Amino acid sequence: MPRRSDGRDRMIRAALELFRRRGYHATAFSDVVRESGAPRGSIYFHFPGGKEELLREVVVAACDEIEESVALAAAGARDAASFVRNLAEAVGQRLEASGYESGCAIATAVLELAPRSEAMSEEFAQGFERWRLALAARLEAWGFARERALVDADVIMAALEGALVLSRAAHSLEPLHRATRALVELIGADAAAATNGAARGRRLAARRS
Amino acid sequence: MPRRSDGRDRMIRAALELFRRRGYHATAFSDVVRESGAPRGSIYFHFPGGKEELLREVVVAACDEIEESVALAAAGARDAASFVRNLAEAVGQRLEASGYESGCAIATAVLELAPRSEAMSEEFAQGFERWRLALAARLEAWGFARERALVDADVIMAALEGALVLSRAAHSLEPLHRATRALVELIGADAAAATNGAARGRRLAARRS
Repeated sequence: MPRRSDGRDRMIRAALELFRRRGYHATAFSDVVRESGAPRGSIYFHFPGGKEELLREVVVAACDEIEESVALAAAGARDAASFVRNLAEAVGQRLEASGYESGCAIATAVLELAPRSEAMSEEFAQGFERWRLALAARLEAWGFARERALVDADVIMAALEGALVLSRAAHSLEPLHRATRALVELIGADAAAATNGAARGRRLAARRS
Repeated sequence: MPRRSDGRDRMIRAALELFRRRGYHATAFSDVVRESGAPRGSIYFHFPGGKEELLREVVVAACDEIEESVALAAAGARDAASFVRNLAEAVGQRLEASGYESGCAIATAVLELAPRSEAMSEEFAQGFERWRLALAARLEAWGFARERALVDADVIMAALEGALVLSRAAHSLEPLHRATRALVELIGADAAAATNGAARGRRLAARRS
């Protein structure tokens, strides 16, 4: 017998994919039911709070995926610059594989709904905060100071979100590739400064001892 | 007697503002009629191609505004870095003044519609291309090489578009400010390199003469 949560999870996965491709307004409950293969009535059983409750779960699922992508990009990276390159490559691969149809589910919902839905604004802000902290933590692990890590996390998130829009509009990865090139240079320069700063710190410490 | 185009222009302005706040799907023709103060039947007279024709005109109007913003930011700038700072400040001021309601009409429509509407994809791509070329031309005027100007134009556009999403989600200008700080440093470093490159070029030319 399938667990109760199986059907619910399948609906969240289906909705995540639909929101990515069409956004929130253009996705009907009936689309989610059809894509997930769930029985028609079950969506009201699993999501008594309606479409907004479904969106809330989609935001959490999207953030889980983003955190996984960040971990995967970091695992294959030798430094902060290659970490950003890996992250952008993963974003580009998925966009291209979807025929430029599938973007960021959260961004689309933000533009469609924020700030008219107060309740959802909280979820959106928390979602991006999870992403920001995941990025900043990786940059700190490569020697970036906290404030620098947060500044760079914001420009990485902003540039990747924006490049997704530009590349979807252009049906081409070229805007993403160009934005990534500039981004990687920026992060590389900050990484060099962080390393020099750390080395200077070590030299000062050595002189003092 | 009002010119025929007056009513049409008012509808385009009203739709531009509505698309910025709610996106394409959530804006009904009746909202545009109400906001523009136009007589009910006139929208079909002015836009026989329906909502998609209206969107096409909105994209053009949004691009006109962007080109104006670029020109204004450049007029008040002493270098490429302050140009980017001015541009980001204008974006932030408008976002804050609207209570975080009003974003980029084109970005929202791209995420809602591209690539399902082939015809609109062309308009979206052309719209961003106009913005890209306007930015790149300014950077070239400050001594940036063509390819560097295009790379930086893409990262400026991407970061500003993405930061609008993050700041709308957070109901705060902080993400925009942090992304801008990193962006300004990047453009400042490229401007210094461009100036050094130009100076080196002049020195080489002087030596040859």
